[in-house]
Amino acid sequence: MIQPARPLTDTERLDRLRLIRTENVGPITFHRLIEQYGSAAAALDALPDLAKRGGRAKPLRILSKADAEREMQANRRFGARLLCAGEPDYPEPLAAVDDAPPVISVMGHAHLLRRRAVAIVGARNASLNGKKFAESLARDLGAAGLLVVSGLARGIDTAAHTGALAGGTAAVLAGGIDVVYPPENEQLYRDIVAQGAVVAESPIGTQPQARHFPRRNRVISGLSLGVLVVEAALRSGSLITARMALEQGREVMAVPGSPLDPRCHGTNNLLRQGATLVERAEDVLQAIETMRPPAVREREADLFSAARAAEPGEADLAKARSLVLENLGPSPVTIDELVRGCQLSAPVVLTVVLELELAGRVQRLPGHQVSLA
Amino acid sequence: MIQPARPLTDTERLDRLRLIRTENVGPITFHRLIEQYGSAAAALDALPDLAKRGGRAKPLRILSKADAEREMQANRRFGARLLCAGEPDYPEPLAAVDDAPPVISVMGHAHLLRRRAVAIVGARNASLNGKKFAESLARDLGAAGLLVVSGLARGIDTAAHTGALAGGTAAVLAGGIDVVYPPENEQLYRDIVAQGAVVAESPIGTQPQARHFPRRNRVISGLSLGVLVVEAALRSGSLITARMALEQGREVMAVPGSPLDPRCHGTNNLLRQGATLVERAEDVLQAIETMRPPAVREREADLFSAARAAEPGEADLAKARSLVLENLGPSPVTIDELVRGCQLSAPVVLTVVLELELAGRVQRLPGHQVSLA
Repeated sequence: MIQPARPLTDTERLDRLRLIRTENVGPITFHRLIEQYGSAAAALDALPDLAKRGGRAKPLRILSKADAEREMQANRRFGARLLCAGEPDYPEPLAAVDDAPPVISVMGHAHLLRRRAVAIVGARNASLNGKKFAESLARDLGAAGLLVVSGLARGIDTAAHTGALAGGTAAVLAGGIDVVYPPENEQLYRDIVAQGAVVAESPIGTQPQARHFPRRNRVISGLSLGVLVVEAALRSGSLITARMALEQGREVMAVPGSPLDPRCHGTNNLLRQGATLVERAEDVLQAIETMRPPAVREREADLFSAARAAEPGEADLAKARSLVLENLGPSPVTIDELVRGCQLSAPVVLTVVLELELAGRVQRLPGHQVSLA
Repeated sequence: MIQPARPLTDTERLDRLRLIRTENVGPITFHRLIEQYGSAAAALDALPDLAKRGGRAKPLRILSKADAEREMQANRRFGARLLCAGEPDYPEPLAAVDDAPPVISVMGHAHLLRRRAVAIVGARNASLNGKKFAESLARDLGAAGLLVVSGLARGIDTAAHTGALAGGTAAVLAGGIDVVYPPENEQLYRDIVAQGAVVAESPIGTQPQARHFPRRNRVISGLSLGVLVVEAALRSGSLITARMALEQGREVMAVPGSPLDPRCHGTNNLLRQGATLVERAEDVLQAIETMRPPAVREREADLFSAARAAEPGEADLAKARSLVLENLGPSPVTIDELVRGCQLSAPVVLTVVLELELAGRVQRLPGHQVSLA
């Protein structure tokens, strides 16, 4: 959903920050608004009316210009850069993701994010051997010129960052760029800022909460050509990262382990499902050797041009709204299925969905999916 | 190459024993002779002439009737049964193998060999965890009604037999049926005779030598629908068993393990090549659930009928002999390739190859392959 990278004006960057910090505007809605209105300024202008038409009673809370300036200022003072999706320095593999973060804070050496990258993730309560393996593999991958991405967590993440510190590593935080979690990794955080890069999607100062971690995981995989899971129990966070990598079209890799160790059940299960088996750095290098950053998926942009061309009348839209709400439930369906289910034109359905999203009544998900909020 | 199972007369069984104990007659040559001549007696009659035509100067050493009777007697006295390929009690999956042993000795409960079987093999210097895993998995498979086949070796084999002793296990020996190797497994051997079955292809009294082990391994896989390798270093004997299982059309399964343990490199490599990943008994049961004992492969019997019908003249055969020898080298080629390379008819090539085999100048290998001896 990202246009070819181009530098943004300071005003547009400020407006983009305001837009993504607006109530009910998630990354997917953000990208749709930019596509439909061409700029964040135009989208911000259109927001109140769109939300009202979607059934929103009280006005949307939009980040004020002053607050957006304060957030930018806080980043600058802390030494962090803000990068917008669509800007030349924004990492391309991440830009190709449906729900790419519209704005990220970066500390340290942002240019490292342009390297071909591999994520190494795994259990927080990893075995000594697991940590030893992750550290040594990360060192080898760093030496081979790759960026090693991970999440600064205990266990495997810590080992991966440590191993790749000299070669090149990036930590993606769940909270704000200035909030180190877990606290015992304070020194590692400083080392990564000095020698690598730290990335955060949450506004500066945000304390990480449970819901931030899956969102963070999509950034870890989004920055990378592939995700290697070193040790992971069944139903663990690392498997979420692996699933996101799969959805994003990235390589999923896993390290085999003893069936007697529950910390290997998740990784062995990935192997069973077809993940690439990794025993040494060469296995990773070979797996991603011929990979190119995945292309941006099919866009809805063409449909939006049609929507702009034939702006539907209010009477049609009112009927469409109730039809769309009737056809939606808590489980996600694709926009295509919704269009067929409603027997309405795609432009009408897309317009109505956007309004309902902003009203907080429906929710957009990656893969052109939508559900009741 | 096995005809539909039928009981053999005592004379034919004696002759078959004499035929397989004849110099230069391996299992493949044995089955070809039976196909071409219909009985071991007729093949024994034809042998001297065939070998002479192949260029053999001194007569072939053929086991005498008296020695064959002595071998049968020794088996009986020891409590072992001789089973010939083609007899009803001979295990069907083994009979389907190109180089099925023409005669095996069986101790204990031969009827167990009719059960659906899975082999569990692995490192002799296995880890404690590997042995624990093998024993518990074998117990579960035995309880599920499967026969667990292994090789009575130290390590994984011992653990597998021990676990499946009550449920059903068969040990395949490299030496004679009465030669326990390694000696410390004497008690386990006795237990298996009492509760399971022991199988040997080598003549009773044979001390196992290095060359016997790969041949033994093909019997382990041949008796089984699938082979599970629990721990194995690269280039280890267990991987030979896995390769044979693959050639025989059986399921290859492996247990994942840490890349830091060299005893897991062979198994992880099998997984990389597509072996089924096994963490518990259900994985094995599922893998072989729908398998039927593999069918006997394409036979050369039809070609032999043609050869019998149009017996080539001696002048043609003399020319063919030198052409076949010219076209063969130390690396195996298929009979098809040889026929095309020589630009001769298949019956002529097959007749010449049989003569040269008996003369000890060429060697037959599974998969209709042949090479210079």
